[in-house]
Amino acid sequence: MTTPGTLYGVGVGPGDPELMTVKAWRLISTSPVIAYLAANGGASTARDIAKPFLPEEAIELAIDMPMRIEREPGEEAYDKGAAAIAEHLKAGRKVVMLCEGDPFFYGSFIYIFARLARDYETVVVPGVSSITASAAAIGRPLAARNEVLKVLPATLEPARLREELASAESAAIIKVGRHFGKVRDVLAGLDLLAKAVVIEKVTRDEQRIGKVADVDGDTVPYFTTILVRAR
Amino acid sequence: MTTPGTLYGVGVGPGDPELMTVKAWRLISTSPVIAYLAANGGASTARDIAKPFLPEEAIELAIDMPMRIEREPGEEAYDKGAAAIAEHLKAGRKVVMLCEGDPFFYGSFIYIFARLARDYETVVVPGVSSITASAAAIGRPLAARNEVLKVLPATLEPARLREELASAESAAIIKVGRHFGKVRDVLAGLDLLAKAVVIEKVTRDEQRIGKVADVDGDTVPYFTTILVRAR
Repeated sequence: MTTPGTLYGVGVGPGDPELMTVKAWRLISTSPVIAYLAANGGASTARDIAKPFLPEEAIELAIDMPMRIEREPGEEAYDKGAAAIAEHLKAGRKVVMLCEGDPFFYGSFIYIFARLARDYETVVVPGVSSITASAAAIGRPLAARNEVLKVLPATLEPARLREELASAESAAIIKVGRHFGKVRDVLAGLDLLAKAVVIEKVTRDEQRIGKVADVDGDTVPYFTTILVRAR
Repeated sequence: MTTPGTLYGVGVGPGDPELMTVKAWRLISTSPVIAYLAANGGASTARDIAKPFLPEEAIELAIDMPMRIEREPGEEAYDKGAAAIAEHLKAGRKVVMLCEGDPFFYGSFIYIFARLARDYETVVVPGVSSITASAAAIGRPLAARNEVLKVLPATLEPARLREELASAESAAIIKVGRHFGKVRDVLAGLDLLAKAVVIEKVTRDEQRIGKVADVDGDTVPYFTTILVRAR
């Protein structure tokens, strides 16, 4: 009987390929199978990031993911993706799944992990997250001393956003995209606009940094973070 | 006139040298000056992590830091350390300062940055933080979907800890050390003990993972994180 392969959920960091860990580089460059999510069957951000390290001979497993403007993609797509990965694991092949940022930090890998970790050996390799990369990009500490740092998905209801922001020394509002207007209104209501910085596509070639007031709310990418430092 | 050197605050990750980024590795292995904090003139955790990558010919600048059991070290020590780094920068030498985890995530580099970034070109290279590494180590996602994640320094007053934990889907209590008893009591009061996991010295050889109930509160290292997943 073939010993099943191990599944590796590998964080590739926020965008700059050099922000991948040495461990990610080693695992990716020696893996026979490389899996990743491909939004609507198209491009994969995680693959783009890992591109310089992908072995030519690797089998690439693009998991087609219908991304309906930031809504949670269908469970069905994850079922299908997990099944495709399981086929390789059963055949004894190691599978590396590329994950933007860190696999366990609001990552899609969580859905694959939930489907496969009970039956297959699964190793998670942490990566640099977009929130610390964003702090580095703007040259402002994320949090220090005994400050409370809150990570707030922009999908939250305005009331919850307001409540959490009101009592945070520091906050990272993530996956802003089409929620920009709502977030801006909440920040304005708390008089926090001057303390907020918008970072789009951090560490990528298209990275943009700006004030909330200067951003066109209609064109904010999904991978946008707003860092707020109240103190 | 000599062009001043650039200061790099480089995150070396949580402990496993392989969790250093490719960028950190490149900068460290080519830097003429490597700075780090040395607690009470002794060992430096950041240097230990970076050891496999340190160039033999580099000048090592150990910044002596009196660590009075987790209390904020004296401003004086940072003044002295910053002055020593500045001497090298003035002489046109690049200086890499090694930082455990991520430089801007509750890191000591913040104090050096505050003293030098106005006068010298300063670049921060993000690293893998202990909180995502801890989630990977225990095989449990840190946060997903629209969950709020809170990072709570264990130095916080019990009332604040209680209040923040009560409304968090997920929390990482960091730098636990001698505050373990207080944190345990707060978790017990919120009936969260069963949902908490203690991770000591994550990804290092001495890593230990356990339940709160099984930990001897008198011997908890400073680099201990408690992850709580309420949902």
